[in-house]
Amino acid sequence: MIRLNCDYSEGAHINILNKLIETNMEQTPGYGEDIYCKQAAALIKDLCKQEKADIHFLVGGTQANLTIIPAALRPHQCVICADSGHINVHETGAIEACGHKVIGLDSKDGKITAKQISAFYHNHHDDETHEHITQPKMVYISNPTELGTIYYKKELEEISKVCRDHGLYLFMDGARLGYGLCAEDNDLDLSDIARLCDVFYIGGTKVGALFGEAVVITSDALKEDFRYIIKQKGGLLAKGRLLGIQFTELFKDGLYFKLASHANRLAVMIKNAFTEKGCSFLVDSCTNLPIHIVKELMLRIVQFVFVQAGLQKKKMSCSFWMM
Amino acid sequence: MIRLNCDYSEGAHINILNKLIETNMEQTPGYGEDIYCKQAAALIKDLCKQEKADIHFLVGGTQANLTIIPAALRPHQCVICADSGHINVHETGAIEACGHKVIGLDSKDGKITAKQISAFYHNHHDDETHEHITQPKMVYISNPTELGTIYYKKELEEISKVCRDHGLYLFMDGARLGYGLCAEDNDLDLSDIARLCDVFYIGGTKVGALFGEAVVITSDALKEDFRYIIKQKGGLLAKGRLLGIQFTELFKDGLYFKLASHANRLAVMIKNAFTEKGCSFLVDSCTNLPIHIVKELMLRIVQFVFVQAGLQKKKMSCSFWMM
Amino acid sequence: MIRLNCDYSEGAHINILNKLIETNMEQTPGYGEDIYCKQAAALIKDLCKQEKADIHFLVGGTQANLTIIPAALRPHQCVICADSGHINVHETGAIEACGHKVIGLDSKDGKITAKQISAFYHNHHDDETHEHITQPKMVYISNPTELGTIYYKKELEEISKVCRDHGLYLFMDGARLGYGLCAEDNDLDLSDIARLCDVFYIGGTKVGALFGEAVVITSDALKEDFRYIIKQKGGLLAKGRLLGIQFTELFKDGLYFKLASHANRLAVMIKNAFTEKGCSFLVDSCTNLPIHIVKELMLRIVQFVFVQAGLQKKKMSCSFWMM
Amino acid sequence: MIRLNCDYSEGAHINILNKLIETNMEQTPGYGEDIYCKQAAALIKDLCKQEKADIHFLVGGTQANLTIIPAALRPHQCVICADSGHINVHETGAIEACGHKVIGLDSKDGKITAKQISAFYHNHHDDETHEHITQPKMVYISNPTELGTIYYKKELEEISKVCRDHGLYLFMDGARLGYGLCAEDNDLDLSDIARLCDVFYIGGTKVGALFGEAVVITSDALKEDFRYIIKQKGGLLAKGRLLGIQFTELFKDGLYFKLASHANRLAVMIKNAFTEKGCSFLVDSCTNLPIHIVKELMLRIVQFVFVQAGLQKKKMSCSFWMM
Repeated sequence: MIRLNCDYSEGAHINILNKLIETNMEQTPGYGEDIYCKQAAALIKDLCKQEKADIHFLVGGTQANLTIIPAALRPHQCVICADSGHINVHETGAIEACGHKVIGLDSKDGKITAKQISAFYHNHHDDETHEHITQPKMVYISNPTELGTIYYKKELEEISKVCRDHGLYLFMDGARLGYGLCAEDNDLDLSDIARLCDVFYIGGTKVGALFGEAVVITSDALKEDFRYIIKQKGGLLAKGRLLGIQFTELFKDGLYFKLASHANRLAVMIKNAFTEKGCSFLVDSCTNLPIHIVKELMLRIVQFVFVQAGLQKKKMSCSFWMM
Repeated sequence: MIRLNCDYSEGAHINILNKLIETNMEQTPGYGEDIYCKQAAALIKDLCKQEKADIHFLVGGTQANLTIIPAALRPHQCVICADSGHINVHETGAIEACGHKVIGLDSKDGKITAKQISAFYHNHHDDETHEHITQPKMVYISNPTELGTIYYKKELEEISKVCRDHGLYLFMDGARLGYGLCAEDNDLDLSDIARLCDVFYIGGTKVGALFGEAVVITSDALKEDFRYIIKQKGGLLAKGRLLGIQFTELFKDGLYFKLASHANRLAVMIKNAFTEKGCSFLVDSCTNLPIHIVKELMLRIVQFVFVQAGLQKKKMSCSFWMM
Repeated sequence: MIRLNCDYSEGAHINILNKLIETNMEQTPGYGEDIYCKQAAALIKDLCKQEKADIHFLVGGTQANLTIIPAALRPHQCVICADSGHINVHETGAIEACGHKVIGLDSKDGKITAKQISAFYHNHHDDETHEHITQPKMVYISNPTELGTIYYKKELEEISKVCRDHGLYLFMDGARLGYGLCAEDNDLDLSDIARLCDVFYIGGTKVGALFGEAVVITSDALKEDFRYIIKQKGGLLAKGRLLGIQFTELFKDGLYFKLASHANRLAVMIKNAFTEKGCSFLVDSCTNLPIHIVKELMLRIVQFVFVQAGLQKKKMSCSFWMM
Repeated sequence: MIRLNCDYSEGAHINILNKLIETNMEQTPGYGEDIYCKQAAALIKDLCKQEKADIHFLVGGTQANLTIIPAALRPHQCVICADSGHINVHETGAIEACGHKVIGLDSKDGKITAKQISAFYHNHHDDETHEHITQPKMVYISNPTELGTIYYKKELEEISKVCRDHGLYLFMDGARLGYGLCAEDNDLDLSDIARLCDVFYIGGTKVGALFGEAVVITSDALKEDFRYIIKQKGGLLAKGRLLGIQFTELFKDGLYFKLASHANRLAVMIKNAFTEKGCSFLVDSCTNLPIHIVKELMLRIVQFVFVQAGLQKKKMSCSFWMM
């Protein structure tokens, strides 16, 4: 049996498990105020070149989104994103459950543009009846997007400029950020993202960790009282050091990037194999397709191939990120 | 340096870590639909003697509370609890953030009584202006309570009867349930609790796990669509098997109860030592004090003693649950 | 100066004001439990041929929407409507502020079809990951729609059947219902609507009242505790008889329908005048255009004409509903 | 039949109704942007000696509370008040439904003190685990209180100072403000209140209007985008001029104060009559008892007297505010 369905099929990189055993009997404070969280935060701040950033560790991506967005918005404000954005379609209305409308802008490749954002902003404020309409205040982008595409530096700079000109917070969902940063044609690094966004997170769950998302807040306006809101939303992990330990392992020797690159490499191999067989892809522009979208597309293709070959019951699987 | 401050200072029982390593490269579906979650659910259903119960695994206690309560209530309904109830004082308004008032009833020992519940219910419905007041619909009790006291079978039966007579859901927060079940004078077991409550959870985080709470829903009215709400509240762990693996380890050979008993035993030792020295306790009735309250009280006492002895900087710690 | 901009430019039909003066010194209970609310409710139940319906009187349309929808839905459930639906675009996220996603289906004429609803329902439940997506539970339609079109009996019957087959509540926003019921090609009456919908409201504010919407609940599932939710949402008018008095006046001799017909008649006159001049309309199918959309379109046309004629500053106005 | 139960038993002062008829056919913009709302706002700003205040007109008190409080608070913040505060006990959880905990401080006379507020504030921030507890950010006081007592200038100055020192918003619910301002021993006027509070409202519903509360915002921090939030909460009255007309009538020649004084005068007469008969009152300190509490107490007393006299069915009523 070979599974090819999702990053969530396995455990974690062995270094992480070993470190959990090594540190198991140590005693530390709870709720993320331990030495490992501090170490991980320092590593991330260095990579981001943002010594004043606030770093918080959460368990999962939906939890990160439903903590960050309500922390930033007043009741009448909404968040805008691509219509394929995870918060718009795949979180069971988590953001609306916190009181805020999510507005999806048309997108073919999972991305939105500075021009769209600016038009949406002006469309709102030029409307005489704008008090009857939710007010855009935050822009949510995923990188890589839910379709596997990535934002390039020029695009992100333009989006960032529009957001700052219009007083909009820019928030990047980086649940799959490793794959994006290690994509062949990527030209962004963590310090670019930290400089251009107000808040973003670095996903661990999909890149070698048992679980964990590292939230990086660079905007002072978004820093205040953030831990209160983590607690309120159920995200303050009691044994918080579990997150610190994992992110320290992922970032101390570049393990995070090695795992993501490895995954991308295997993805490209698969993609090429299928392209040679004449399969075309949903999103043409993804010349250096991050792994997750390959997996999703591949799964469908493979199932199709198997059915054709009369192998309907068999399943394939491959674990990309586990080196 | 000796820490005596909290269950959250350390990792997990070693069996759990070993099992995580052993299963690390296995491939399973995500989101709690794996074989380990099924195994753990089966073990728990057996212990509860409730084959038709629904079992869900969540990461933490606040998350469990903010998922269960909104899943059960309509907008105008409230939950009632002891004024010291965790949801009332120590979750940063998590329940209110989901739209519901928490009403704390007077309590000296952390417990509430069937009589109080009945009086509150009638007081509401007898009020001519009751439409102007939140309607009681759920009763929340913690066992052990936040003060370390426990509910006895007769008390729980009375509460359960009042709740069923009045159409109130009965919900037990069992974040520390192991300590309660293993307390010397406890007369409840999991099957009693499952029979008498509509929903409760069994805390793993404080009894040997890295994290995890097992929610047991016995009321059919509360079962429908529960996983949607877990997802909406950010509680659907991607690599959900981590929870299944932990609870399987805790329950397959009674490890959970061994750990809790051990902790209680050490607690009593400490308590006795202090009682001999003439220290009295906040809650007199706690003849068999669960560990957590001992820890909290002890910490203060120890600090006091140390200050007296000129040892202000020194800290003590002891890990009770790790056999 | 002639204003042509909105129904909200003036006061109320004189009968209503006279009745307010006549009853001013009478003493009645507050909060809608007076004799006038009972009279108005009886009149409406008769017209609806629904003796068991619950009738509630609210001040405005957004208030009605934000009371009815949260009263019906559990946290993970959403309401679906035309993308032009008032709740989707023009209520500052009032429904999301109560925790629920609003999903707009594609619509060119402001209407949605039974087929669209059924497809959306099946699309949701056929998705293996549907627990990650808000669950459709209520269908919201406006009649007349925000574009001035109306639902015909056959359409409403089909929608009602799909909703009942799939366990979806059907809710009609009737803020402009009078215009719809009196449109030339309308074939629905209040008893059809009451029979086919689970809940709807009859707008007074746009048809001769100072303010007021009469909510009609025919579904038993939606009746329970509704007044609690009205109070919670700020909609329980202290001197509730003001609503009862107005709706009694509107319905006791058919005044409501006379006012709406008069408005429609004038609207058609204007429309014809413009059509003769060669103006075409946004929504072609509106052969019997309700007044509000005429007003909106006319305003733009008139402004255009005036600008052409160098009369930029002048404004036109006409009050249609005041006979 | 004599009713003595509530201010809500009757209509409005006749000047208001006459003005509604007089202006009925005038055409104005909707949603409170008409000339009458501007006039009323100007009158109120003059009385408050706050030319820069923002004035908004809402229909009712619960609506005002559920608009003002969420407009001011971030998700983790709570509002504190006397345990008898209207928002705490008599609005069906309206504030919690917007996501915020209401914390009632002990109070015997319906009032809270600067000392209590300061202690509560420090208690929160001194707690090492304060991130697990809702953060106090707004103080809500009612004047007169729900028990009929009033705040004196010295008390309000002390409360205001504590609030400003600690960064807490001070909000006065003035649903019954007229009675307070016209109480015999009152030493506050509107300009004091405007100077000392960040936001408050002047109740019209209980002092001669059909309905209406005038919100006065003096704090710049609370002004931004307030109309968006009114709309979201369902409080933006379509024919908003109805509110402007009523408040213009109430304030243009001091009618508001005449009505309130008259009511107080009658209240004192009743109170004296009962005191002479040996009845004692719930709140001893209310030497100049505002009418509403007299009514409430009287009702009970009268009923008691009637029962004693074998007159159980008879009801008394008197309309105090209608001169």
